[in-house]
Amino acid sequence: MSPKITTELLKQLRQVMKNPKYVQEPVQAYIVPSGDAHQSEYIAPCDCRRAFISGFDGSAGTAIVTEQHAAMWTDGRYFLQAAHQMDNNWTLMKIGLKDTPTQEDWLVSVLPEGSKVGVDPFIIPADQWKRMSKALRSAGHDLVPVKENLIDTIWTDCPQRPCKPLITLDLSYTGVSLRDKIVALRSKMIERKVMWFVVTALDEVAWLFNLRGSDVEYNPVFFAYAIIGMNTIRLFIDGDRIMDPAVREHLQLDFTLDPEFEIQVLPYGSVLSELQAVGAGLSPKEKVWLSDKASYALTEAIPKAYRYLTPYTPICIAKAVKNTSETEGMRRAHIKDAVALCELFNWLEKEVVPKGTVTEIIAADKAEEFRSQQKDFVELSFATISSTGPNGAIIHYKPVPETNRTLSVNEIYLLDSGAQYKDGTTDVTRTMHFGTPSAYEKECFTYVLKGHIAVSAAIFPNGTKGHLLDSFARSALWDCGLDYLHGTGHGVGSFLNVHEGPCGISYKTFADEPLEIGMIVSDEPGYYEDGSFGIRIENVVLVIPAETKYDFKNRGSLTFEPLTLVPIQTKMIDMNLLTQKECNWVNDYHQKCREVIGAELERQGRHEALQWLIRETEPLIRAQ
Amino acid sequence: MSPKITTELLKQLRQVMKNPKYVQEPVQAYIVPSGDAHQSEYIAPCDCRRAFISGFDGSAGTAIVTEQHAAMWTDGRYFLQAAHQMDNNWTLMKIGLKDTPTQEDWLVSVLPEGSKVGVDPFIIPADQWKRMSKALRSAGHDLVPVKENLIDTIWTDCPQRPCKPLITLDLSYTGVSLRDKIVALRSKMIERKVMWFVVTALDEVAWLFNLRGSDVEYNPVFFAYAIIGMNTIRLFIDGDRIMDPAVREHLQLDFTLDPEFEIQVLPYGSVLSELQAVGAGLSPKEKVWLSDKASYALTEAIPKAYRYLTPYTPICIAKAVKNTSETEGMRRAHIKDAVALCELFNWLEKEVVPKGTVTEIIAADKAEEFRSQQKDFVELSFATISSTGPNGAIIHYKPVPETNRTLSVNEIYLLDSGAQYKDGTTDVTRTMHFGTPSAYEKECFTYVLKGHIAVSAAIFPNGTKGHLLDSFARSALWDCGLDYLHGTGHGVGSFLNVHEGPCGISYKTFADEPLEIGMIVSDEPGYYEDGSFGIRIENVVLVIPAETKYDFKNRGSLTFEPLTLVPIQTKMIDMNLLTQKECNWVNDYHQKCREVIGAELERQGRHEALQWLIRETEPLIRAQ
Repeated sequence: MSPKITTELLKQLRQVMKNPKYVQEPVQAYIVPSGDAHQSEYIAPCDCRRAFISGFDGSAGTAIVTEQHAAMWTDGRYFLQAAHQMDNNWTLMKIGLKDTPTQEDWLVSVLPEGSKVGVDPFIIPADQWKRMSKALRSAGHDLVPVKENLIDTIWTDCPQRPCKPLITLDLSYTGVSLRDKIVALRSKMIERKVMWFVVTALDEVAWLFNLRGSDVEYNPVFFAYAIIGMNTIRLFIDGDRIMDPAVREHLQLDFTLDPEFEIQVLPYGSVLSELQAVGAGLSPKEKVWLSDKASYALTEAIPKAYRYLTPYTPICIAKAVKNTSETEGMRRAHIKDAVALCELFNWLEKEVVPKGTVTEIIAADKAEEFRSQQKDFVELSFATISSTGPNGAIIHYKPVPETNRTLSVNEIYLLDSGAQYKDGTTDVTRTMHFGTPSAYEKECFTYVLKGHIAVSAAIFPNGTKGHLLDSFARSALWDCGLDYLHGTGHGVGSFLNVHEGPCGISYKTFADEPLEIGMIVSDEPGYYEDGSFGIRIENVVLVIPAETKYDFKNRGSLTFEPLTLVPIQTKMIDMNLLTQKECNWVNDYHQKCREVIGAELERQGRHEALQWLIRETEPLIRAQ
Repeated sequence: MSPKITTELLKQLRQVMKNPKYVQEPVQAYIVPSGDAHQSEYIAPCDCRRAFISGFDGSAGTAIVTEQHAAMWTDGRYFLQAAHQMDNNWTLMKIGLKDTPTQEDWLVSVLPEGSKVGVDPFIIPADQWKRMSKALRSAGHDLVPVKENLIDTIWTDCPQRPCKPLITLDLSYTGVSLRDKIVALRSKMIERKVMWFVVTALDEVAWLFNLRGSDVEYNPVFFAYAIIGMNTIRLFIDGDRIMDPAVREHLQLDFTLDPEFEIQVLPYGSVLSELQAVGAGLSPKEKVWLSDKASYALTEAIPKAYRYLTPYTPICIAKAVKNTSETEGMRRAHIKDAVALCELFNWLEKEVVPKGTVTEIIAADKAEEFRSQQKDFVELSFATISSTGPNGAIIHYKPVPETNRTLSVNEIYLLDSGAQYKDGTTDVTRTMHFGTPSAYEKECFTYVLKGHIAVSAAIFPNGTKGHLLDSFARSALWDCGLDYLHGTGHGVGSFLNVHEGPCGISYKTFADEPLEIGMIVSDEPGYYEDGSFGIRIENVVLVIPAETKYDFKNRGSLTFEPLTLVPIQTKMIDMNLLTQKECNWVNDYHQKCREVIGAELERQGRHEALQWLIRETEPLIRAQ
């Protein structure tokens, strides 16, 4: 790929940085972060401003343009890609390398004295604003909010903000009505003595209103905000999608309700002025609850003394603990997903081995095709990672024509994929060999499997945070001097974002919330040999009660139940490295796959895939 | 014990809170924290101000006195003790319980509008000041520094600040000269672009100057500060102890040196004015490095823009990584310590079983007696935890006449003890039964042992933080629904504090530094059955390179080597619960105890203890 030529664009940007039409005073630097106004991980095309100005379209990166310089900060996953996609107007700042300056330090080193640094206050989270503003101020500069996004002023063919139809979810999917969610939220608000709660994350809005959308690829969300008061519910959303009778019925917009459950629908763009009005009308001791990741613009709308900021909102935590309807939905989604993958792997075995015509892209498309045949399929939950041989070692790989390899009997194949079904979200990784794996490949695979089992079968007391389980996944690898450089698991939404907080399993010390019954996370250790192969074994698992001899003095015991029920390729296992307990785990797991997925394959009349499943779930026998 | 009657004292304190002799304006509340001006864990009697005003003398607690109220915040370890020691002038605030307000929230709820809250700026760490000041300010109150400590003004029989003679340590103990430590420190200062470094922690001063003291019980430190510039070394220390010729020789006070290594000795009390002079003379970009735990008073001496604050100082980190002389010293200290414990356990077996006359206090005294017979013994490294039966379940137990139990053949005995030798610091816990342990006691002991081994034998990549190993210690307990409510390990000083940063092994998410070769930590999982028994197995372990098959792609492999070499009572082990690998670990460990400690017992002519050691280190045989 050739880099994007940005000379003209940068010239235009530098002009608007001084144009009184857009800025009160000229800004000597302008920051273009990755995110959107909701701090989403996945963003819509109209929000890809950093990619537009620089050419670099990886998922993480911050661009800063000054009168003389243009610099891009990104992390190790994207060093190569960014270098390829950006022209030589840009300096690549490699985050994590010792000599790479922070954005603040770099700004201080290049800016003339007393400079103004501009940023879109809707895009920068309040906590980042605070950090950066402080650093700049202590060096004599100012971080200033620039109301109009300066990239948008020069982006003449910027795509429209999506405004797709909404999907209503009834009680059989959500388990809890909008009304009951509001009641629960208000009781949390009373507990914390706040009068208002501002919903800024897109998945939190979707969850609260039991609605879904498709404004952002892979994430069934829609652009909206909400402000919940003790007697009011305001939903900020654009377009005639709210005129859809099903949506009106769902939100009970045309009914006479108890006034405190009546929903006022307001334009998406009016959230700031409405929030400012709320802020102006507060009496002493009336606080407003916001995520500390909410945008600087919204946070500033509330006078400082009235803000109540937390890293996780009560919606984020409530959303993470799935109710019975949601877990049942997740189970159904995972059964359907497993059916699709049994079909795929059976098909791959037939195609790859004798013909050698299947590429990574063809395999990914075929996986999507099988998934789309399943009931309530909506879309994929992320870009399929279909990678063979050395491509498997690129953790965030997505096959494109330039890199597309053909699957063969000589290389390991890694497929990390998932889908959105109306009843749940899936995310599963399997690593297979269609020929004869080497002893080393089997050795590495078996360590990864041991780590996967160690987490999946772990028993731990109620209240344990997920990061305490991360090392269990690494222990077998560590014993031989191997490791993987990513976390072990992330929260998974229920027909929502495939990555969600506030829980996870990672060596990174972040403020994760304790695991509790009903939470759903992934368990995905891996091993990557640069230039050769990648191995990852991922199930989505549900936190359930465990039975233990002493039950932590009634504190309660927890463990995981795999929701993913797709065979783990036994051909890849070095049986000498498995303990009897681990061997039993694999056999029990495969027994369950055979029973549950077998019945569904049977029901769907997918006999060939069923035969494949039965072959792949033959019990392992361990030499004593 | 009966509570301290504090009515008169509180009356006096409330008077000085309004006395213009001590306060510029009356303060409506006065905070009395636990610590001293160096944020020490162990403090001198003259710094026990909170105990003086309240009667509560636990190791952690903060008192706040207002015109109407007196309240004490402490944690679960001390709820009972505090309730017993305080009279009903005091309200006990139980930290960790849901309904307990924070100090800030409580102050806001009881203070009249626009109140002043006073605190000694030398006692409160800067980071705590910042948090509390912000919370109070947002509620319309002010946190104000009160120069004279108000407790000291009413504490008529306050003991003198200790000023004991210094011990000089030569190169054979320290491995690195003062001069080389200064050179290394200055190179870190250049790296971080700071011109001055302020040493505030007592163990950091002691380490830097290769001096020890005995101003604080159990911690071989002395009251002092230091300010290191690029060309100056200032040591703030009181008393004629600096007139000792050995100290003068050690610090080269009477030599003509390169000026940048000349030590200026100044009075302890002049540190603030000297630092203020430094602060006043700074040119732009000249920064001063302080720990963010340094006192508010010292931190404020440096204008905000010139401060460089870090959670761990370069001395703290350098001190944690022991050099060869230090590790060799620690090895020697642990050999001597093991000799003392072999003598003790042999003696206990002879005394407890037939006679039944040994109490917890007698056993603790006997342990000290045997230790004091060893070369270079200085003092104990903490108050000996000598506990039998139910007392063992009190994690921070120290026997006193009221609680003193007699050791018997019917109860588990737990001894957690250690000493300061001139060549190293020890800390070891052994749990024994002098009769026949129950099946349940053996079961719990064996899980604890499995956890101990899991950490001790863990292999992990270079750069791993200790908290990632904590769950290894719990896994066997968790599988049966058991757990312990303390961390697994802490850093250990080299003839310095028995608890030191910046590394450790804990489930608590604190900013620990990565483990590296030469660091020394404890490995001490436990299990406590309230009202019945306590079990803990603790070794001090050294981080060493490990040999692994793949060596983490040259990142390097680490593991631990036990420095503590005291037999683990095999009678307490349920062999059915031990894997072959764990059984081998115990046998290898005991083999090493027999060889190393056996040779020393032989050398010291302690034949009876040697026979005990040989009996206690008989290899285990596991039924196949």
